[in-house]
Amino acid sequence: MRPRTFIALAFTLFMMSVSALVNASSTAAAEASSDNTLIVEKQRFTLPSFETFNGSTIKQVNVGWEAYGELNDKKDNVILVTHYFSGTSHAAGKYTEKDAQPGYWDAIIGPGKAIDTNKFFVVSVDTLVNLNAYDEHVITTGPASINPDTNKPYGLSFPVVTIRDFVNVQKALLESLGITSLYAVVGPSMGSMQAIDWASAYPDWIPRMISVIGAGESDGWTTAALAHWAMPIKLDSNWNNGNYTKETAPVNGLTASLMLISQHALSPEYFNAQAQSLEFSNLEDAPLNDINTSHSIVNWLTSRAASRAENMDANHLLYLVRACQLFVAGHQQDLKKGLSTIKAKTLFFPATTDLLLMPYLSEHTHAMLEDMGKDTAIDMLSGSLGHLEGVANVQAQQTRIRRFLEEK
Amino acid sequence: MRPRTFIALAFTLFMMSVSALVNASSTAAAEASSDNTLIVEKQRFTLPSFETFNGSTIKQVNVGWEAYGELNDKKDNVILVTHYFSGTSHAAGKYTEKDAQPGYWDAIIGPGKAIDTNKFFVVSVDTLVNLNAYDEHVITTGPASINPDTNKPYGLSFPVVTIRDFVNVQKALLESLGITSLYAVVGPSMGSMQAIDWASAYPDWIPRMISVIGAGESDGWTTAALAHWAMPIKLDSNWNNGNYTKETAPVNGLTASLMLISQHALSPEYFNAQAQSLEFSNLEDAPLNDINTSHSIVNWLTSRAASRAENMDANHLLYLVRACQLFVAGHQQDLKKGLSTIKAKTLFFPATTDLLLMPYLSEHTHAMLEDMGKDTAIDMLSGSLGHLEGVANVQAQQTRIRRFLEEK
Repeated sequence: MRPRTFIALAFTLFMMSVSALVNASSTAAAEASSDNTLIVEKQRFTLPSFETFNGSTIKQVNVGWEAYGELNDKKDNVILVTHYFSGTSHAAGKYTEKDAQPGYWDAIIGPGKAIDTNKFFVVSVDTLVNLNAYDEHVITTGPASINPDTNKPYGLSFPVVTIRDFVNVQKALLESLGITSLYAVVGPSMGSMQAIDWASAYPDWIPRMISVIGAGESDGWTTAALAHWAMPIKLDSNWNNGNYTKETAPVNGLTASLMLISQHALSPEYFNAQAQSLEFSNLEDAPLNDINTSHSIVNWLTSRAASRAENMDANHLLYLVRACQLFVAGHQQDLKKGLSTIKAKTLFFPATTDLLLMPYLSEHTHAMLEDMGKDTAIDMLSGSLGHLEGVANVQAQQTRIRRFLEEK
Repeated sequence: MRPRTFIALAFTLFMMSVSALVNASSTAAAEASSDNTLIVEKQRFTLPSFETFNGSTIKQVNVGWEAYGELNDKKDNVILVTHYFSGTSHAAGKYTEKDAQPGYWDAIIGPGKAIDTNKFFVVSVDTLVNLNAYDEHVITTGPASINPDTNKPYGLSFPVVTIRDFVNVQKALLESLGITSLYAVVGPSMGSMQAIDWASAYPDWIPRMISVIGAGESDGWTTAALAHWAMPIKLDSNWNNGNYTKETAPVNGLTASLMLISQHALSPEYFNAQAQSLEFSNLEDAPLNDINTSHSIVNWLTSRAASRAENMDANHLLYLVRACQLFVAGHQQDLKKGLSTIKAKTLFFPATTDLLLMPYLSEHTHAMLEDMGKDTAIDMLSGSLGHLEGVANVQAQQTRIRRFLEEK
C-alpha cells in the first residue's frame, strides 16, 4: 500500500459510516458480501468479575470481539489476532458494504488470504482500556466506563492493567466458546506484546506465534519513550487528574499526544512526501511572522490528530502507555525467564525503518530464543513507512506468513 | 567521553559554581591556568537597534561572547564556533579553576588541540533567545528580556527570529572588532545551521565550514518533530500565552519538553545503560500499582530535566524551535539555491546513531554540494550516544578537523 492510500485508511478507520452495533453473544462467523469482502458483526463478551495481574478486581468487564471464518468441530482451527495500541478488534472485513475501508489487516485475513478464513476461525478482541472508547464499533472497559459501585466513570480509580490482563480476558472469551488451545496467535506492535505473552504464559495453548513490529519487552529506552505520550494529556488543565466528562475532556492534550504518536509511528520519507504535497516551505509567511502560527506540515499533523481524538479517551491512552511500559514476556522478573517457557515456533517481522519499536528489540528477543534452542525465525518488513509498515504493509510478507501457518 | 562522564558534563554545565559575570567589552583573550585549562571571561556586545530577517526591529540587543587565543595583527586567524540548541557561548575553558567542567567542546578547542588556540582566535557568541536565559553566564535578548518601550518582559511580542538573525548579530560583533572575514566557522546541531547559513549568506567571509550533526535545512519531518518540543509548554496553564514571570513560569511544561529533547538527542544504548545502573525493571511495584507513579528510568529523566529547567526559559524554547523550523541554508526559497552561493570548502560530520538530525540530512546537503562541483567531504561520528555524539565525543574526529583547518 502506498503512503497516500495508507493515510486514507489510517485516518478514516475511526470515522467510518456507522452501522448498527450488534451485541450478539453467538459465535456467528463473518459472511462474504457480494464483492467477496467479509461482512462482520461486533459481538460482546461479559465477565461479571475479573481479577487483574496486580490483584485488583474489576466488576462487569465488557469487551467487543469479531470473528472471521468458521470454528470447526474439533475447535482446533482458531487463530487469535491481537491489536495494536490505537487499534481495535476490527482486523478484517467491513460492517456494511458501504464502509470506506475494511479492518486494518484485511490484506492478509480473508478467504484464500495468508490467514485463510476458508481454513481458520480468526478471532480478534478489543482490549481493556481500548483507546477508541467512544467509537460505536468498540466495546471496552476502562477509566471512561461507569463504575457499577458509584455510577460514575472510574477515572483514575480504575486499576492499572497489563498486557497479561488483555490476554486473560481473551482467554476467558475463548474458553466461553469451548476453545482450549489456539492454532496460532498473531499481532502487530502492542498486539505482538500480547502474542508473545500468550506464548510465554500459556505455552500449551500456543504452538505458533507471529510477532509483527514487536518487542519481547519494553526496554529502558522504550519505557521512557512511551512516557512522553502521556505528558501532553497530564499537562492539559482539562485533564483534572483524570476527572472529566466527554464534554470537558482534555482534547488539546490528547491531540498533542496523538501528534507525537503519529510521528513516532511513521518515517521521514512518509512525512517528506506529505510535505511535498502540501508545498511545504521553511520560510512560509505565517510561521515566519507570527509565533502563534505553524508550518503547513505541522497543521496537517494537528488536524489529523484532532480528528482521531474525537473517538478516543485520554485516560485510556495513559493506561495503554502504562500497560506497554510494564510489559516483559511472561510478566516474569526478566525477559530470559519469560521466554524460557515458550513452546511455540515463533516468527518475528521487525520493520527496518521502525523508530518506535526498533528492529533491535525483535532481533534481541529472537536471538535469545535461538540461544535457548527454540524454533524461531526472523525476517524484515523493508518498506519506508516506519513502524506502521507492520499495520499497513504486512502483506509484503504474506507468502512467509502463509507458509509458516501451513507448516506443522 | 563515556556516557556516564558525558551526563555529568551535560547536566552540571548549567549548575556550575558561580563566578562573577564580567561584562567587559574589550577583546581580552583567555589565559591558561596552572593546569593548562583556559580561563575565560564572558563579554557583552550591545547593538542599539537590530533589524530582524522578517523586518522587525529590536532595540538594545545584548549578547554574551567568549574568545580563546589571540587575534593576530592581520585579523585573519578567527574561527567562529556556533552553539547548539540548549548550548551557550561557553565552548571551551573554565570561568574559574574551581569549575566542575569546562565548555562543551573543550576537548577540541585549546592550546595544541584540533582547533588550536596557539594559532587561532576562537570566538563564540550566545544566540538571541538563548535557552539558558537565567544562567548567570549567559547574556541574551529574547522574550524574557525587558522591552525598553514598556519596561515589561517582551513575552510573545518579541519578533520571530531566525538562524540568519543569530548570524547577523555575530557578524555585527565581529565587525565591531575590525574583523572582515573568518578563517573558518564550525558548529554542532543548531550551530551547524548557523555555520551553513554563514557560508551561504556571506560567502566572501567563509573559506572553510565544518558542520557537526547538522542539516542544510529542516525538512518536513524535522520541522514537525520540532513542533512536539513546543507542545508541553503551550499546554501548561502557567504558560498563559507567554505572559509569566520567573516565579510563575510553566516549569512542568518546560520540564516535559526537556525530557523529550533529551531522549530525542540520545540513544537506546545510552538509556539502557542508565536503566541498568538504576536496576530498572518493567514490573516495578510503584508503576504496577499506581497510575500516578512512574518507572525508575522515567523518574531519572524527569529529575534531570527539572534541574536543567531552572536556568531556562520556556518562551525562549518556543522561539528556538521556530528558528530551527524556519531554517534553510541561506534562507532562500530552497536548499539548492541556498547552497549554490557557498564558496567555502565544507566538511560534514553526521552521527550514525543520530535520531534527531538524522545522517540523511547531512548526506543530502553534502551530495548537493558535490553535484555543484564544490569542495566538500563527509565522515561519520560512529559512537553510540545518538545526536549528542557531536557535542560530547567530537574529539573522535580531532585529527580530521585539524587536517581540514591546516589545509589551504
